[in-house]
Amino acid sequence: MSKEVTYTVRVEFGDCDPARIVWFPNFFRWIDAASRHFFIECGVPPWAETEKTLGVIGTPLVDTKARFLKTATYGDRLDIVTSIGEWRGKSFTQRYRVMKGEDLLLECEEVRIFAGRRDDGSIFAQPIPEGIRALCE
Amino acid sequence: MSKEVTYTVRVEFGDCDPARIVWFPNFFRWIDAASRHFFIECGVPPWAETEKTLGVIGTPLVDTKARFLKTATYGDRLDIVTSIGEWRGKSFTQRYRVMKGEDLLLECEEVRIFAGRRDDGSIFAQPIPEGIRALCE
Amino acid sequence: MSKEVTYTVRVEFGDCDPARIVWFPNFFRWIDAASRHFFIECGVPPWAETEKTLGVIGTPLVDTKARFLKTATYGDRLDIVTSIGEWRGKSFTQRYRVMKGEDLLLECEEVRIFAGRRDDGSIFAQPIPEGIRALCE
Amino acid sequence: MSKEVTYTVRVEFGDCDPARIVWFPNFFRWIDAASRHFFIECGVPPWAETEKTLGVIGTPLVDTKARFLKTATYGDRLDIVTSIGEWRGKSFTQRYRVMKGEDLLLECEEVRIFAGRRDDGSIFAQPIPEGIRALCE
Repeated sequence: MSKEVTYTVRVEFGDCDPARIVWFPNFFRWIDAASRHFFIECGVPPWAETEKTLGVIGTPLVDTKARFLKTATYGDRLDIVTSIGEWRGKSFTQRYRVMKGEDLLLECEEVRIFAGRRDDGSIFAQPIPEGIRALCE
Repeated sequence: MSKEVTYTVRVEFGDCDPARIVWFPNFFRWIDAASRHFFIECGVPPWAETEKTLGVIGTPLVDTKARFLKTATYGDRLDIVTSIGEWRGKSFTQRYRVMKGEDLLLECEEVRIFAGRRDDGSIFAQPIPEGIRALCE
Repeated sequence: MSKEVTYTVRVEFGDCDPARIVWFPNFFRWIDAASRHFFIECGVPPWAETEKTLGVIGTPLVDTKARFLKTATYGDRLDIVTSIGEWRGKSFTQRYRVMKGEDLLLECEEVRIFAGRRDDGSIFAQPIPEGIRALCE
Repeated sequence: MSKEVTYTVRVEFGDCDPARIVWFPNFFRWIDAASRHFFIECGVPPWAETEKTLGVIGTPLVDTKARFLKTATYGDRLDIVTSIGEWRGKSFTQRYRVMKGEDLLLECEEVRIFAGRRDDGSIFAQPIPEGIRALCE
């Protein structure tokens, strides 16, 4: 079982579009922040440190799917509940429920990797670092 | 068969993150622009007009899934090839291939609706407007 | 004398650019949120309400100047200390100090108006609403 | 005299806020792109190259002031006319006029530096590289 960590967002005027609702790419902005926040809250060091100790520069996205159930607007306070769905060999799934109080606004499931960087600058998927996995469970 | 429309993006410095690659929410920013661009290029009037003529205020997102295959960085020029996948009763799918030259960077498929607005400000899915559908085929 | 209200920001990975520092337009994103937050904390109703009661749809920017003294990066927590500098006939100045602990990172001073909207959709500067001014002092 | 370079922007739906006009931080997003575009069009290599050849990692902002004269909305096409105002010892000014056809929407003047990076990661102002200056005149 994974830990569950909540990241809270205030929706601002500029996050909304002319339809007066959150412009959807902003949800992905917040989900990415919630992803990193999850690891920080679990005790994983910042990527600038893991780059030196584990060669892990971050957790880039490989795949995402999201269902948008209800809209939000400025003044709303959202809670993004984040957990790990599954650990695979060289990737993992991360899950998000974006809540406004008791209302589920959005569900998202991603596949991410722990990325290393090659000498030529390109990135590759590292095997899941056992130490990081242990901190998240 | 749907038309296919290409929307071109220049990747800028500020679109990239400390890993020097495009920060993924920016891809959704561009995909949303490509979605609207598709309708404009097909001859559909701006939503500000269709609001008056058809009660359609836009095409909000219901569902999205995306696969990230390769990264991009600033200085890159990307082509987003957009089409309609399927017309359903009250929704439709829109498809995107984000290309860098011959390289496929990202595939995305969305479900969107043609939204109307109720008196209380909430939005709802309209039946697919036949006139709009005809312009897109 | 104006009230002073603090708005707190967590700097996220995606707020930073390939130089690993906050990409400057994000400071303006946060400053705009701090501006609205100032009025909310002073007890001014949301613009959606003032539109009905006072014809005020918001406080668009007319003029801004900012000095960037130090950089910030992800993981930083910033406090944006906001106040009113001066009330003029049909505009006002709003001031911001962006602090990281005791360090001043950025100073900004803006001219904003309380905007009304004409029938043709264009906006205009309203005289300063006395009720709003009283709440902010 | 400085060269003058134009950067063209399409305003998208998501660039606009609930007042249906461009949310102002987006103007700074485009201005930053116009700044880099100016150097590229003058023949200056990308910062990733100048980092190796000149130790210049980019042109971070020190100071900016902007006047907002008219608004823009989605569907608009904007031209950002960019030039160098003044070369100083360790900084320079860059000027922007954001035009919609013949209408001036926004004027901006910035102070920027050519930044180097110290071993501890901090940045500092380099003397103006003569080769870059020559390309821009």
